Amino acid sequence: MERHHFEEDLKTLKQRLLHMGALVEERAHQAILSLIERRQEVAEKVIDGDREVNDLQIEIDDRCVKLLALQQPMATDLRLITSAMKINDDLERIGDQAVNIAENVVKLLPNPPLRPLIDIPRMAELAEAMTRDALDAFVKRDPELARSVLRRDDEVDQLKDQVFRVLLTYMMADPGTIERALGLILISRNLERIADHATNIAEDVIFMVEAKDVRHHHEEAKA
Amino acid sequence: MERHHFEEDLKTLKQRLLHMGALVEERAHQAILSLIERRQEVAEKVIDGDREVNDLQIEIDDRCVKLLALQQPMATDLRLITSAMKINDDLERIGDQAVNIAENVVKLLPNPPLRPLIDIPRMAELAEAMTRDALDAFVKRDPELARSVLRRDDEVDQLKDQVFRVLLTYMMADPGTIERALGLILISRNLERIADHATNIAEDVIFMVEAKDVRHHHEEAKA
Repeated sequence: MERHHFEEDLKTLKQRLLHMGALVEERAHQAILSLIERRQEVAEKVIDGDREVNDLQIEIDDRCVKLLALQQPMATDLRLITSAMKINDDLERIGDQAVNIAENVVKLLPNPPLRPLIDIPRMAELAEAMTRDALDAFVKRDPELARSVLRRDDEVDQLKDQVFRVLLTYMMADPGTIERALGLILISRNLERIADHATNIAEDVIFMVEAKDVRHHHEEAKA
Repeated sequence: MERHHFEEDLKTLKQRLLHMGALVEERAHQAILSLIERRQEVAEKVIDGDREVNDLQIEIDDRCVKLLALQQPMATDLRLITSAMKINDDLERIGDQAVNIAENVVKLLPNPPLRPLIDIPRMAELAEAMTRDALDAFVKRDPELARSVLRRDDEVDQLKDQVFRVLLTYMMADPGTIERALGLILISRNLERIADHATNIAEDVIFMVEAKDVRHHHEEAKA
């Protein structure tokens, strides 16, 4: 296959990954919307619609393996394709978290709401923007944008701790809130995991562009 | 590079992955041991020792990319190497969960113990064996062993739900147990995630050996 064809295939691969990213981000958004607006049918749609994400994951993985097999790419292109394989896996797991959130929402909705949702909507906004920007950084090969994703992960962790502390206070004060507070704690953990996957993607982008492994330096800086 | 050299490199790659697997499994084991035996210093050692896992992950990833770049492998070998890259990521995340468990243990230990640990030790045993067997299935190219890992994931999920129900009862009956019960719920979720990573590895093995994508058929069967 000629070079021109290869470039076209790489372009299609990027487009499909962007499509996958938009899909899972939208599903995470709908899952949190179903919580905020208390709409059971929206949560159920998220739970039932996981098939499309799964099919897309398989399609993208297949594209990557074929590109590796048929094209025997070198250096930069090789890094692009192996990064795409990893990013694809992280996106699929973001999709899984959207389903987990929606399942937690379905369990919560039969009960009356537990006051405002504290920092959960803010966590969701952050996690969605991190996912979007990490993928944008991949397509634009922009390590600075990727680094901004890493920085935001700490903010998500702080919000998660804060949500936990506030809900713990509710539970201690009124055992009638325990079950609902637990549901919200689990949802905040699901959002934290989405942010973690976005962070993984951002680390892959920096590695791909700079051929430098930032993965664990970031973690050490956090510790 | 000649074929003989390539075979040697593949063998080394498998050995390093096995080493990585043994390392993270032992760290998960130590994390749960620190909970069962209430030994803070064991938990702290798990938290401090993550560096070795991270260095090994980078080394293995690097080996894979070099093999792809220098050898331009075809078909079976290509699948082996791309699977190794994915498995490596899942193993590193199992290591992260061991750290999360140890961190939860450190928070729990200053309080008196909350009765027996329900099914948490059983969950830990299952998750460790799943990790071991998934990796063993990779090295032996044994799809049947990999399938036995997939089946055990349902058992872990059931235990997780049971742990949740029992701890919820404790909390409702005595608000003084809330904080400790929450800590145990989070640990059971960490164990569930280890089992999920082992399941991902097993799915990669089946895919590698049979070039058949079982990933989402399994999930659909579960739903």
